[in-house]
Amino acid sequence: MAEKFDVVDVIRTKRDKNILSDDQIDWVIDAYTRGVVDPEQMSALAMAVFLNGMTRPEIARWCNAMIDSGERLGFESLGVPTSDKHSTGGVGDKITLPLAPLVAAFGVAVPQLSGRGLGHTGGTLDKLESIPGWNCNLTNEQVEAQLKDPNVRSVICAAGPNLAPADKKLYALRDITATVDCVPLIATSIMSKKIAEGTDALILDVKVGSGAFMKQLDMARELARTMVDLGTDAGVNTVAMLTDMSTPLGLTAGNAMEVRESVEVLAGGGPQDVVDLTVALAVEMLDAAGQPQGEDEVRAALQDGRAMDKWRNLIAAQGGDVDAELPWATETQDVLAETDGVMTRLDALDVGVAAWRLGAGRARATDPVQAGAGVVMHAKPGDQVTAGQPLMTLHTDTPDQFPRALEVLDGAWDIAPVGTAFTPGPIVIEKIV
Amino acid sequence: MAEKFDVVDVIRTKRDKNILSDDQIDWVIDAYTRGVVDPEQMSALAMAVFLNGMTRPEIARWCNAMIDSGERLGFESLGVPTSDKHSTGGVGDKITLPLAPLVAAFGVAVPQLSGRGLGHTGGTLDKLESIPGWNCNLTNEQVEAQLKDPNVRSVICAAGPNLAPADKKLYALRDITATVDCVPLIATSIMSKKIAEGTDALILDVKVGSGAFMKQLDMARELARTMVDLGTDAGVNTVAMLTDMSTPLGLTAGNAMEVRESVEVLAGGGPQDVVDLTVALAVEMLDAAGQPQGEDEVRAALQDGRAMDKWRNLIAAQGGDVDAELPWATETQDVLAETDGVMTRLDALDVGVAAWRLGAGRARATDPVQAGAGVVMHAKPGDQVTAGQPLMTLHTDTPDQFPRALEVLDGAWDIAPVGTAFTPGPIVIEKIV
Repeated sequence: MAEKFDVVDVIRTKRDKNILSDDQIDWVIDAYTRGVVDPEQMSALAMAVFLNGMTRPEIARWCNAMIDSGERLGFESLGVPTSDKHSTGGVGDKITLPLAPLVAAFGVAVPQLSGRGLGHTGGTLDKLESIPGWNCNLTNEQVEAQLKDPNVRSVICAAGPNLAPADKKLYALRDITATVDCVPLIATSIMSKKIAEGTDALILDVKVGSGAFMKQLDMARELARTMVDLGTDAGVNTVAMLTDMSTPLGLTAGNAMEVRESVEVLAGGGPQDVVDLTVALAVEMLDAAGQPQGEDEVRAALQDGRAMDKWRNLIAAQGGDVDAELPWATETQDVLAETDGVMTRLDALDVGVAAWRLGAGRARATDPVQAGAGVVMHAKPGDQVTAGQPLMTLHTDTPDQFPRALEVLDGAWDIAPVGTAFTPGPIVIEKIV
Repeated sequence: MAEKFDVVDVIRTKRDKNILSDDQIDWVIDAYTRGVVDPEQMSALAMAVFLNGMTRPEIARWCNAMIDSGERLGFESLGVPTSDKHSTGGVGDKITLPLAPLVAAFGVAVPQLSGRGLGHTGGTLDKLESIPGWNCNLTNEQVEAQLKDPNVRSVICAAGPNLAPADKKLYALRDITATVDCVPLIATSIMSKKIAEGTDALILDVKVGSGAFMKQLDMARELARTMVDLGTDAGVNTVAMLTDMSTPLGLTAGNAMEVRESVEVLAGGGPQDVVDLTVALAVEMLDAAGQPQGEDEVRAALQDGRAMDKWRNLIAAQGGDVDAELPWATETQDVLAETDGVMTRLDALDVGVAAWRLGAGRARATDPVQAGAGVVMHAKPGDQVTAGQPLMTLHTDTPDQFPRALEVLDGAWDIAPVGTAFTPGPIVIEKIV
């Protein structure tokens, strides 16, 4: 009975639409981390938060309590500024891969702690693990050494077990209790890790559209606003970009295939939407870190090999064989256009679910993923198509999944009559500072 | 993957204010009982039900699924009708003790499955266990034998482990997750056990007022209506009485002391409110069982020893020493009136919490209770009091609890000036059929 609160009273407070006190929040997060508050009690509280919300001060305190559940890193000893990026997750979102070495090419260190995919959204670590030998589990000393090395200056790795452990525990719980897509819980989950990580600057890529967690612009804006405020209050120079996720990013949604596409971007090529978003985010990351560069100069670093050099060093530093042939799936199947015309829509969620069903994603955090599985797109909105041409090619090692992938792709695109004028919308919708 | 549903989809359905399908409800209750649905998932669903409610058909299906989690009893072989009573719980509510033998005295069998106290409300089993030797754990065969015996005709015991096991598991979960006081969950919890028990008739004593779960008349009415409909639909002749619980019932709130008061009632004496409510409920139980008796005839059975004979046989049948001296607490303290006047209010919740703190109740289902602890009241609303007279006497084996009991009693009653006219309200507020 040395506990400060009865957890039933804390749950009841939020259940009855009242405001949790600072002490209640500090206690419940700490007691949950210690195992004094049971998972079934925390999930009841999470559902009450989901349905009744939290105020700005409650959210800030909750985030702080999650940070205080673990260690805080710091990069003061590097002698260069640090800048990180976080994406809320989408389909074909491989931006971290070209972006980290691109920013590092300008002397700003990029401590990119990344995650794995779940459901229809891919994960950066899953993608990079298709490179033979590449290792995502680094010690704090390895992270620091890589950031200090002027030939590398970036790291892409899993968050260590001591970084916001309350969030790790709570995230796993939310995943199985339908309490994931809730602004206060998403914002505090993301920002507790990023603030604890100790980056100087942070650019948030908040996805909006069918393939994103946030389907509606107003909810994405609320999430972005909440996260920018949390970061700013904690002394992190934080900017959010609302970006389009109604259409998949680039022409691939899978693991190895997205690494290949990223390497194309680093070689000065690649799909325009991936290049444009990579450059836009790099400009923001450099600016927020106090090392502004013009957009043309940033683009030039993709063209002249400076970013590619950093990429090769980054992959090699983490044990990856940068010249290895990446895996392919054993089976493919084309999906053909039925009419001539202009593609006006290609649904990100449907493509993401198809890639997931083909084996690129997972349903549970512990499931394996197929390196070669996924969807290669041959047409995107704005493109002319001809009846009979392949619109996409499905890749998998488990061809019995083709029917289930085709099922979700039924109705996933629109083809307008030949000659219809159509221009896709901008990739960056809004900036929130 | 042989499971019919993903529990996250089921939780999300209720979270998003949609209606659970019959199949979803059947599955989730069954899967929770089997341990396939985890406690943290069921508590998230319970909180979503708490905050978003259930429709009438959802409640009926939920109740049925809980019944189907275990066995159904039946009393067809008795050759006499059965009638049961359930109270939603209050302070000083010892009514089951005189009521069961009183109804049995008229040849109607009373299969009274009872519970233990939690928090400020007492439990029938805790009270009876203050009688040396009395045993509440009976086999189905013992229950049937007792009901068949014309000299006994009633049984007061704990529900067996096979009666609505889903409810047992869910109730324990609700207790620690602040999801108890919610009409759909209370109604299905009570009615699943009562319907599974197989009684022909059921009288629900739904308490209203400060000492009850339902503080407001409209919520009590909603609970009563919901339970009457569930019982009626299941073929149980069900009637609900809304009764007053703003004031404690009788002059005692404790365990042994309530047994003593019940014996007074069975001996033709006892406090008027306890006698009136016992008689009113007996009349309803006999009527619902198809064996109507006039109120005068029922009162006569308390006066002439017929009910007392059944009580003695009932206690003896379950191993109790009916002539034993019941325990007293080791320490007492009087609470004195500060002014002359007329008592116009005595708060049931405050008296209940005081009795609980003195040791009569428990905070956790596994805590022990003190047989002798509790509150003896010397005045009730409507009574004249004189400055310096004892208003109540506190009894406990742990006198260090006196200050905490006195603390909650501060402001628990009102005394109006001498000569103020005051008549307490009726004990039965409303009948719902």
